[in-house]
Parts: sequence; structure tokens; C-alpha cells
Amino acid sequence: MKAIIQTNLEDPHSLELGETNKPQLQDGEVLVKVKAAGVNRADLLQARGHYPPPPGASEIIGLEVAGEVVDAGDTDVEVGSKVGALLAGGGYAEYVAVPQGQLLPIPTGYSFAEAASVIEVACTVWSNIAMEAGLTQGQTILIHGGAGGIGTFAIQVAKQLGATVAVTAGSDEKLETCKELGADILINYNEQDFAEELKNQCDVILDIMGAKYLKKNLIALAKGGHMVTIGMQGGTKAELNMGILLNKRLTLQGTTLRSRSLEGKATIVADTVKHVWPWLENGSVKHYLHATYALARAAEAHKALDSGEVTGKLVLEV
Amino acid sequence: MKAIIQTNLEDPHSLELGETNKPQLQDGEVLVKVKAAGVNRADLLQARGHYPPPPGASEIIGLEVAGEVVDAGDTDVEVGSKVGALLAGGGYAEYVAVPQGQLLPIPTGYSFAEAASVIEVACTVWSNIAMEAGLTQGQTILIHGGAGGIGTFAIQVAKQLGATVAVTAGSDEKLETCKELGADILINYNEQDFAEELKNQCDVILDIMGAKYLKKNLIALAKGGHMVTIGMQGGTKAELNMGILLNKRLTLQGTTLRSRSLEGKATIVADTVKHVWPWLENGSVKHYLHATYALARAAEAHKALDSGEVTGKLVLEV
Repeated sequence: MKAIIQTNLEDPHSLELGETNKPQLQDGEVLVKVKAAGVNRADLLQARGHYPPPPGASEIIGLEVAGEVVDAGDTDVEVGSKVGALLAGGGYAEYVAVPQGQLLPIPTGYSFAEAASVIEVACTVWSNIAMEAGLTQGQTILIHGGAGGIGTFAIQVAKQLGATVAVTAGSDEKLETCKELGADILINYNEQDFAEELKNQCDVILDIMGAKYLKKNLIALAKGGHMVTIGMQGGTKAELNMGILLNKRLTLQGTTLRSRSLEGKATIVADTVKHVWPWLENGSVKHYLHATYALARAAEAHKALDSGEVTGKLVLEV
Repeated sequence: MKAIIQTNLEDPHSLELGETNKPQLQDGEVLVKVKAAGVNRADLLQARGHYPPPPGASEIIGLEVAGEVVDAGDTDVEVGSKVGALLAGGGYAEYVAVPQGQLLPIPTGYSFAEAASVIEVACTVWSNIAMEAGLTQGQTILIHGGAGGIGTFAIQVAKQLGATVAVTAGSDEKLETCKELGADILINYNEQDFAEELKNQCDVILDIMGAKYLKKNLIALAKGGHMVTIGMQGGTKAELNMGILLNKRLTLQGTTLRSRSLEGKATIVADTVKHVWPWLENGSVKHYLHATYALARAAEAHKALDSGEVTGKLVLEV
């Protein structure tokens, strides 16, 4: 089959369309013929050698696809079903093997490209803010990077849950985008100190900055608050004052979707489909596709995402 | 009424029996005539000015009592009921006002002194290892200070939950105590490195050391592991590597019982009585009373607890 092969591990942009073997199905897996594959920031990290696939996963880049089931293996999935799939790897290819628990229905009205690009963000946002942090009606959530791919989706999901939403972003234009999606409290981190603005107010924080914001996040958290860190764009090592942790009864949690067990992923996929898919289908949560590229142009898509000028998701079409 | 008054705030041992006003009942509170009051390490901190009562709580020291209800206020509690009570303060006195949700039954077969001294430890252990960290059958828990008041109780509760129990302690004698209570893995922290012994193995850690053990605890935690810190005997400020937090999907949580809302305390009390009281009553979890003192001798009890030579709980009898 055709797949994107990284020809030079020293060069993250050496992504070329090549030939490799079709994946062999393991117990409980189905073979999906890929129509579209979402491009994620984690893919850029993997091409740089910073985010290796978990043991047993495909070496091919790609964490989410949509397509058609062409071999049901030992499962009861119907051949010909149109599906989305959450992957540990292998998406940038003609075919990918998928554990049954990681298949999702295509949201009604969604194209393959739209479906392929909403899976990772929907599962990430829902698992972190709802399943892990337990965000509920009347609470306040702070979303860092509100105008990014995760942020724009998280704002909408948090509003559906009935929360007050605070966001940080680096420009008034980006904050305007957040506001249009429903954000209530807008903080330009170049002009304002979010810790001062939100001191002791945040029940939940969705963090992508790691070390750089740790101290300020502890100030912003309310008593009993819960921070979920899913990225470390601001570095990894920071001083932690455990006194504040105890006095405010705080929870700090780091998560990744990719390293979870099959069972863990299946639980997240099922809960995300149950709660988020209806919002996608009735339009109360909107998903933005920025552009599509042919699979062979994966390197170009990576460069575009790397440029920081992309405001929605990129998709490779097979 | 009589109560223990700290006559000199600079001197933690200036605890004298004096006269003060009986507490006024607020909505939802009952008045308990105290028969016995448990002595906790937090009481020593409060006498040193390091653990002030939360807003609205009594200035009198004392976090747990047992006694008789003498005024039911606006509640449906029966006057004359023998009860235990979890308190935000006020225990070292003849009378104390208690929110109804913080009353507990006296475990069958328990004296007032035994009951008064088991409430804080039972609610602390249960709320942290079961309700917060979600310890379940087949998991491994590491309990620091296994031979202490919290530790000895936590070992037994963890065994009832079906967990494998690892403990740290500072002498082989203390470890022998832990073993008798059911501990499976014994680590003498003066001779062994617990992080090395337990690398990536601990689903739950019950931590009382704070900063000093943070780095090693992160090593010991398994993927998806959850550490609950309830004390900071090893200081408050430490470097946190958030990379490990993400890679291993860890949760770090600080908790205190005292600062929780009335609702939060009532939930913990009810769940602790539901799960732990049957174990106290059938003897599968044993509770050790070390000694009782007359209320007037509170300063002596504090000195004894401070000496570090007490292996069970101390109780003041009124």
C-alpha cells in the first residue's frame, strides 16, 4: 500500500509517499481503507523524533482517520461501514488497522475530511474537561490558547456544559474569535496577568503551557480546583509549591490520549460519541476545517501547521 | 463551660483549662456534650500558629470528639444520642456545636475514647485512598510513614480493598508493625531507595512528605498513577518535572479535610461510615488507642505526641 514514509529521521520534512506492507490485523482489529487523515501538532513532534509511537503501534504518522471498513477481522463490524478512527499511529496511509473500540460513527452531515479531523480534538477535549476534571454547570474553566485547535473546540464544549469560560490568547483578534465561540472572560496574555484577573476563580484549567504557567495557574485555581495539562509549550520543569496544593486542595494532572490502554481509549471514544457527537450533529459545537492536502503533500501540510498561521484543522485526503 | 485555652500564642504548650462561653448553635447544628476528644498532629500545628481554624470555626483546638447530643437545635437528631463528630475545631471543651452532616454513629463495641480517636483518621484515609485516588482491588498503593497513625490505619483499609500495600518506615521494628497489619512490601527508608524498589509500580501513593519525596514519588508512580498528599513533613517547594506528569498520565492532589465545605464533609462522613464502620465493628480494621489524659492535661498529651514515641492515638477525656 501507499503511505507517508519519513526518509530521513534527521529531517522532519522528509515525508514522502512510498510503498509499505498493508498492516496485519491483530485480534479485535478491523482494516480501514483511509479516505482522509487528520494532521495534528503531535505529528510534527513525531517527525522531529520527540513523540515516538507507543510500543506495538505503527511507525507511520497519523492519529485519526475516516474511511471505510474493508476487512472486519474477527469483529462483528460490518464490512463497508463508513467510520472514523482514533489511532495510536498509522493514519497517513491507504490502510490502517484499528481496534474495534476506537471506531466512531461519522457525525451526520460530516464529510470524511471533516470527520477525520474532529476525532482527536473531540476525544482530547471531552476526556480532559468532562471525564477527568469533571467540569459541570456553574463552574469556571480557564482555557489557555483559546484560539487554537483544542481551545476553540474546548470553549464550545465548556459552554454546552454550562460553564463560565475564561480564555487566554496573544491578540485581540484571537480573543474576538474566542468570544464568538462563547468565551465569557477574555485575557490578552501580552497585556494582562491572568493569575491576577482570575485569582482563586478557576474550578478547571485546561493547560497547554506546562512549566511556564504552573505558578500562575496555581494562583488562578479555586479551592478544590483541577488542572489538566495536555501540552508543555512552556517547558517541563518548574518549582511546585505543595503548600498551595494542600491549602487549596488542588489536583494537577497530566494526560495524553495516545499512551492509554485499549480499554481506556475505548471508554473515552464511547463517552465522546455519546456526549459530543449530538452537539456536532445539531451544530451547537462547530468544527473548522482549514484546508485539505493530497496525502503526497504531507510535508507541505506539516510546514503550514508549523507556521502557526493555521486557524482550523488540516486534513490529508487519500 | 470549661475548655482548653491557649494562654500564650507564642508558647504552644500554654494550654490551660479555662472558662469560656458555650457555643451558639447555627442552623443545622446540634450541641454535643463532649466525653472524649481525639488529639491530632494538626492540633500541635494549630498551637504553634501554623494551622489556623477556617473562617467561622471555633478558635478552640480539637478536630474530633465523641459524646452525647444535649440540644438538637433545628435538626431531627434525637437528644441523648451517643455520637461521634468530625469538627473544624472546638473539640477540647465541655460542649461543641456540630453540623448534623458531621455526626457519626459510635461503632458498636467502641468506647467514647476509642470512637473520638478514630473519626479523623478514618475519614482522612477513606476520603483520600478510596474516594479521591479510587484505589481498587489488584492495584498497588505506597503508604509513606506506614507505622504512623494514618499509616497503620491506611494499611488495613487498603488490604480490605484488595490492594497490594507497600510502606516506608524508618526502622525494621516499625516495618514489623506494618507487616503485622498486612503490608506486603516493606521499605526501610534509611537503607533502601523506595523509588528504585517501586519504579513505575504504584497506582496510588498516600504521601505525607511533600517536597522531599516529590521526585522519587513521580518515579514510583505507575502509568495513570494518583498521588494524594496530606502532609508536608518534608517541606513544600520542589522541582516538578511536568514531562513525567504527561508521559505517565499522573495525578498529583493535595487535600485537607478541615477546609472542605459542610457538604463536602458530610459526603465524606457518610461514605466513611458506610464503608469503614463495618470493618471497625467486625474487627477487620483495628484501631489503637495509645493513652488517655484528662482534658486539663492537654499540654502533656501534646508533648507526648510531639516526642514521636506514641504509636497509637491519644485522647482527652472530659
